[in-house]
Amino acid sequence: MLKQLTSLVCISLVVLNALAHNNGLALTPQMGWDTWNYYGCSISEQTILDAAQGFIKYDLPKYGYNYVVMDDCWQAPARNATTGAPIADPTKFPSGMKALADQIHSMGLKFGIYSSAGMYTCGGHFGSLGYETIDAQTYAEWGADYLKYDNCYNEGQAGTPKLSYDRYANMSFALNATGRPILYSMCNWGEDGPWNFAPTIANSWRISGDIYDNYNRFDERCPCLSMIDCKLAGYHCAMTRIIDFAAPVGQKAGTNHWNDLDMLEVGNGGMTYDEYVTHFSMWSILKSPLILGNNVLNMTNETLEIITNDAIIAVNQDSTGSAAERMWKVPVFSGGDLSSWSGSLVNNTFVIALLNTSPETQYVTVNFTDVFIDQGPSYQTGTYVIYDLWQKDSAGAWGKDIGTYTAAIPDVEIG
Amino acid sequence: MLKQLTSLVCISLVVLNALAHNNGLALTPQMGWDTWNYYGCSISEQTILDAAQGFIKYDLPKYGYNYVVMDDCWQAPARNATTGAPIADPTKFPSGMKALADQIHSMGLKFGIYSSAGMYTCGGHFGSLGYETIDAQTYAEWGADYLKYDNCYNEGQAGTPKLSYDRYANMSFALNATGRPILYSMCNWGEDGPWNFAPTIANSWRISGDIYDNYNRFDERCPCLSMIDCKLAGYHCAMTRIIDFAAPVGQKAGTNHWNDLDMLEVGNGGMTYDEYVTHFSMWSILKSPLILGNNVLNMTNETLEIITNDAIIAVNQDSTGSAAERMWKVPVFSGGDLSSWSGSLVNNTFVIALLNTSPETQYVTVNFTDVFIDQGPSYQTGTYVIYDLWQKDSAGAWGKDIGTYTAAIPDVEIG
Amino acid sequence: MLKQLTSLVCISLVVLNALAHNNGLALTPQMGWDTWNYYGCSISEQTILDAAQGFIKYDLPKYGYNYVVMDDCWQAPARNATTGAPIADPTKFPSGMKALADQIHSMGLKFGIYSSAGMYTCGGHFGSLGYETIDAQTYAEWGADYLKYDNCYNEGQAGTPKLSYDRYANMSFALNATGRPILYSMCNWGEDGPWNFAPTIANSWRISGDIYDNYNRFDERCPCLSMIDCKLAGYHCAMTRIIDFAAPVGQKAGTNHWNDLDMLEVGNGGMTYDEYVTHFSMWSILKSPLILGNNVLNMTNETLEIITNDAIIAVNQDSTGSAAERMWKVPVFSGGDLSSWSGSLVNNTFVIALLNTSPETQYVTVNFTDVFIDQGPSYQTGTYVIYDLWQKDSAGAWGKDIGTYTAAIPDVEIG
Amino acid sequence: MLKQLTSLVCISLVVLNALAHNNGLALTPQMGWDTWNYYGCSISEQTILDAAQGFIKYDLPKYGYNYVVMDDCWQAPARNATTGAPIADPTKFPSGMKALADQIHSMGLKFGIYSSAGMYTCGGHFGSLGYETIDAQTYAEWGADYLKYDNCYNEGQAGTPKLSYDRYANMSFALNATGRPILYSMCNWGEDGPWNFAPTIANSWRISGDIYDNYNRFDERCPCLSMIDCKLAGYHCAMTRIIDFAAPVGQKAGTNHWNDLDMLEVGNGGMTYDEYVTHFSMWSILKSPLILGNNVLNMTNETLEIITNDAIIAVNQDSTGSAAERMWKVPVFSGGDLSSWSGSLVNNTFVIALLNTSPETQYVTVNFTDVFIDQGPSYQTGTYVIYDLWQKDSAGAWGKDIGTYTAAIPDVEIG
Repeated sequence: MLKQLTSLVCISLVVLNALAHNNGLALTPQMGWDTWNYYGCSISEQTILDAAQGFIKYDLPKYGYNYVVMDDCWQAPARNATTGAPIADPTKFPSGMKALADQIHSMGLKFGIYSSAGMYTCGGHFGSLGYETIDAQTYAEWGADYLKYDNCYNEGQAGTPKLSYDRYANMSFALNATGRPILYSMCNWGEDGPWNFAPTIANSWRISGDIYDNYNRFDERCPCLSMIDCKLAGYHCAMTRIIDFAAPVGQKAGTNHWNDLDMLEVGNGGMTYDEYVTHFSMWSILKSPLILGNNVLNMTNETLEIITNDAIIAVNQDSTGSAAERMWKVPVFSGGDLSSWSGSLVNNTFVIALLNTSPETQYVTVNFTDVFIDQGPSYQTGTYVIYDLWQKDSAGAWGKDIGTYTAAIPDVEIG
Repeated sequence: MLKQLTSLVCISLVVLNALAHNNGLALTPQMGWDTWNYYGCSISEQTILDAAQGFIKYDLPKYGYNYVVMDDCWQAPARNATTGAPIADPTKFPSGMKALADQIHSMGLKFGIYSSAGMYTCGGHFGSLGYETIDAQTYAEWGADYLKYDNCYNEGQAGTPKLSYDRYANMSFALNATGRPILYSMCNWGEDGPWNFAPTIANSWRISGDIYDNYNRFDERCPCLSMIDCKLAGYHCAMTRIIDFAAPVGQKAGTNHWNDLDMLEVGNGGMTYDEYVTHFSMWSILKSPLILGNNVLNMTNETLEIITNDAIIAVNQDSTGSAAERMWKVPVFSGGDLSSWSGSLVNNTFVIALLNTSPETQYVTVNFTDVFIDQGPSYQTGTYVIYDLWQKDSAGAWGKDIGTYTAAIPDVEIG
Repeated sequence: MLKQLTSLVCISLVVLNALAHNNGLALTPQMGWDTWNYYGCSISEQTILDAAQGFIKYDLPKYGYNYVVMDDCWQAPARNATTGAPIADPTKFPSGMKALADQIHSMGLKFGIYSSAGMYTCGGHFGSLGYETIDAQTYAEWGADYLKYDNCYNEGQAGTPKLSYDRYANMSFALNATGRPILYSMCNWGEDGPWNFAPTIANSWRISGDIYDNYNRFDERCPCLSMIDCKLAGYHCAMTRIIDFAAPVGQKAGTNHWNDLDMLEVGNGGMTYDEYVTHFSMWSILKSPLILGNNVLNMTNETLEIITNDAIIAVNQDSTGSAAERMWKVPVFSGGDLSSWSGSLVNNTFVIALLNTSPETQYVTVNFTDVFIDQGPSYQTGTYVIYDLWQKDSAGAWGKDIGTYTAAIPDVEIG
Repeated sequence: MLKQLTSLVCISLVVLNALAHNNGLALTPQMGWDTWNYYGCSISEQTILDAAQGFIKYDLPKYGYNYVVMDDCWQAPARNATTGAPIADPTKFPSGMKALADQIHSMGLKFGIYSSAGMYTCGGHFGSLGYETIDAQTYAEWGADYLKYDNCYNEGQAGTPKLSYDRYANMSFALNATGRPILYSMCNWGEDGPWNFAPTIANSWRISGDIYDNYNRFDERCPCLSMIDCKLAGYHCAMTRIIDFAAPVGQKAGTNHWNDLDMLEVGNGGMTYDEYVTHFSMWSILKSPLILGNNVLNMTNETLEIITNDAIIAVNQDSTGSAAERMWKVPVFSGGDLSSWSGSLVNNTFVIALLNTSPETQYVTVNFTDVFIDQGPSYQTGTYVIYDLWQKDSAGAWGKDIGTYTAAIPDVEIG
């Protein structure tokens, strides 16, 4: 399913100058977990702490996962009537947000919070539109390290890049003004082209409507065929449709400013093992943030293997920060498509992915002319050591040497 | 044509917290009657009172119909030259609007009025653009309970969600400021995506150009193939085309904020009995307001049966406020499409609709995997009691038990 | 090519209340002549006077033609350096504009002028953007009765209906403020949907890029396939392409506010007699202004016959002001399309047109169900006297009775 | 590949009145060289001077090349902290910009500089948004003759023509205010239709995402199929795709305001000789600026021959300033298209190009009806002397007389 040219063994992390949102965060795509995909609105102090325990139980920080993000529905029914400050639901969060964040921090993890650039959040709680300053200040006082900032009920302040930029920039400036480094994760569903307007104000931006735990089913609630100029992002977007949406905008990602393909569904049960492998691999090579969305307290071995494949994660976290590009895509007679992706990594290392969404196994010769279209003739005729990142080597580490090839890798079987 | 899983008998009305336009109205889609489809511009005090008599004659309030809405052409040639207040046409409305509303109220009904967010109404009378405050105040003084607010002659104040939002929000705020609860029914024909910008300001919004009394004829005056980013909504939109327009935006409807598929044509003669059954059923499951558009003084038994099917109305008025989604749509070789719709109701009850716009009868197996795509495996393998809401039970009530099924309902005949 | 149901003999002109631009002009589509199509930039005082002589020579006012419009290139190199007032080119117009207008008026004709809502006109002369008040005032002082107002060099003040509206409304208000009735002919090439925003500010608006004297050749300089949301109107639009553009927007035309399909090419030599008949007929039934663009000093009999067919002109000038709609359009195997149009006239009279753009003769049965789709069953089964408006009766008048038909006109030959 | 009707020998340069950006520059498309395509970010004082030496070595000014343009990455890490003035990187440019410009001037050449209408340049250096006045002033003080002004990191100030116009006009006005004539080369990648809004503020505007050195490969990073209303211009646009983008907008080019098809790739190795001939020819007849992008210090004879074909350059620099139009384009069964282009030059001279992007040789009869569609019948039946501009005459000059033809040139072989 995914193959890589030459070794990933000696990746040296080089911190580039970040052009974008200058809070010094997300030099590589952020990694963590978010409450929404598994718990939806049913969250509490205990939910968050349990998840944090899951991080420790499964040693997730070793692989890079460190943000525990509390999504929507943490809010009390109303803001503080006098100050306008946000208040957490005292029933769900009896210890208060600051205490919760302290506990998360004491476990060596970081704490994320959620709001919406609208009158309400998507779950119908108070939103932050018009309250950017006090909200950012309060989040900072609580000890938040991360803000996911949604797009519901935005009062018509969308439809041109300028309107969307202004609305989201207000929160960006408010977060910066707190002095606390808070990773800013924009979630405006790709409206008005955030890949064009957001690199200077956010660490990442969503590029589509919400994912759902399905490989490739078309759902009318995610109606657009492309996210370039889509006027109804919707939700219930199948996993491979989001990959299609991501293909043309990979060029816009880079250190400190990433395309967010939405939270992972790995482990939630709606796809097969191979489909989740594809999901995790493609999110990684497209340099999406890797935010888990499953029950991290209780994972099967299969789920755990996928999300802790450190060779794949190394591709995601590679310091060049360059998303893989789709070099070609061809329809398959029986339905679906076959596509080839390649991307640059550090130290003359490259990653190749072949994606087959048809119902049948495909055989492909991977031509180096395609793989190295950006690098040119000298690379196209080279000789490479190839590693399969979904096989383990003799020592049990991800990434098995499968031989040396010149000009092409013949007869690759996919799916 | 329409089938429903398990019983509708014991629907318990649970009032949810409304997120949207906070006037406390339209917790379920509004029901009533409007002058336009039958009378057009030829209305008067007597027309309205006659219709109200029709409500009583046919016992319509028992089924939920309570708004008597006076559409365009009630206006005098000009506003009050001194105050700018709107004036009713003294010839058509000799008793005055307040007296008319009082009479409507005395019959236990509610009174609706019409204007346009433009310089003129669509019929060429004075519009409310720039007169929002005095107009809302006057409507409230007259005793209006409902405002249909049109989009003609809007002076270029459209084309971005912000421009449309601002124009319609002005009236929303003006209505709220009166202190009188007035249901606010936006009619901007789906321009600029009201499903995105209007939930916080209106109780319902039109999603297309005007309906006409025809099943599926393409008319060039309704030229767009989708209402997502349509720049010419037009009119003469056939009934099933509006269903197509509604499919992707059902996700945006909910308690207090509804997609309005336009007034009903049931009883006006342009469609067959079966087509009107489809019309009324689909409007109901998509949670459109049910605003009658026929002559309610004089209805055939067939018309009356359709509009008083209380099982169908119960689906429309179900307190979950969740519009049915189109699970699949396939073209039929002889023309037209076959589609399947399903929606959640209270108490683990669901509604299924199969829609056949082809000229031939179709046979379908209704697969529970499709029906319960949102609910997942545990529902997909369940056993359900099925009721056909267009058959009557042995006691003469709508909704006949047609058996118990597991995993699928085989051999359903449609059309 | 064009047939009409029942007689046109006794059309009674009823002046309706105009909703739009309230200067009292263009109750029916304006008729006249414009310098551009024949002379381009090579105009002078003499050109205009010669054309006016042509009006008299051929008795054109008898048929309704009364505006002599001077298009671009009348301007001096610069405005008055002190007052900013526009100045006519003293070489081309030695007598001055006021004297020219007086002469035109003395011949019983009306005088039109041209400018652009931009920094320059399309021909590179000074435009009126920012000079609306002084320009309107000066045109009024000169005695202008008509303004064609173009769209070149608009400095980015386009792209939303609001920007286009504001720019064109400025001139509308300035013209009204002069106190002189000046017909306002907007020429923004259909950008931003003038059919939506212009009815309250203009008497007519262009709906496309410039016509050229060709029947149906696709030219890349007129690249859009529809004018709904076209971002490059261009020019060199063939005649039948403009008809396609007009089809969905006919619904927006009415008394005082017309879709302008651009000036006529009849007599300029690029089309055949039959093609010019189609051109003149379709412009007429779509209620376009009829502005001649040929050399009116010297016309062939064929040209003169076409432009003075008073039966066709009567359709155009019919007081109902309702544009014909395209009832159906089907592709022809050999290329091109066959389409049917029908429209309402006064006194229960209707006009039908059949348009064949294929290279072969077509035979059609004109079904009254199609023709009277808007009028309904009672009309669809009626009996009608049919007149062919391109044949002459025994007295030599346009419009020959070709029989009485019920439900359909069989075996109509077209093209 | 390219043929021309009648002689190019006696072209007389007539300076037309320029309508556009009134700095008196670019009466014909600018010619020169830019650092980006060959050097990317790896530039220095020496790079620029070496290139200038290349101009002298190969006698390029004789052919019209005179601008040496320094693209991105000349900047110091930050502006002057006190004045905000831009500062050049002191390591790369130890002598300073003024000294560099002086040297360029002393060689008889002109000096170009680069910035972006955004917070950063595309390479991540400080941009000019908000610094227009001081930047223009500083460039003028340094002696710059040309500004290429890019579009990266524009903070959402795009999406409507007005937003783009305002942003780019600010720099236009600032450049004019310096009093120094500085050619203004807009590079907003065709966003918001610069062909519509930029003629009055710029000498040229880019019409697409960045070119790459490839004949016709589709690359997803250049995803739009047309640049009319493209919302993601991207980069990696193959050469013939840019020709497709240019086809409908040629009508908008003219003296002083040109469509810029991007810098040339001739000599960079990604295309064949014939493909580079096509590239240079099409850029020339479409009246694109001719800005070399190869290593001008060291050129092969083939490269030099192409870029110094003075017959082709004469077409580009012809004083009528009229871009060739695509008269027809037909798909070829084996893939790709065959198209025909023609354009007017001075003195009744015309240029014809036939473009074959299929893999096979094509044979075509060039019909004068197509060639002279704009000129009409009198030209279509004429007799012409034909010159092939890619053959040399007996004296060794480009442009060989290949015979005299009436009505058509039969059996032309292409590709």
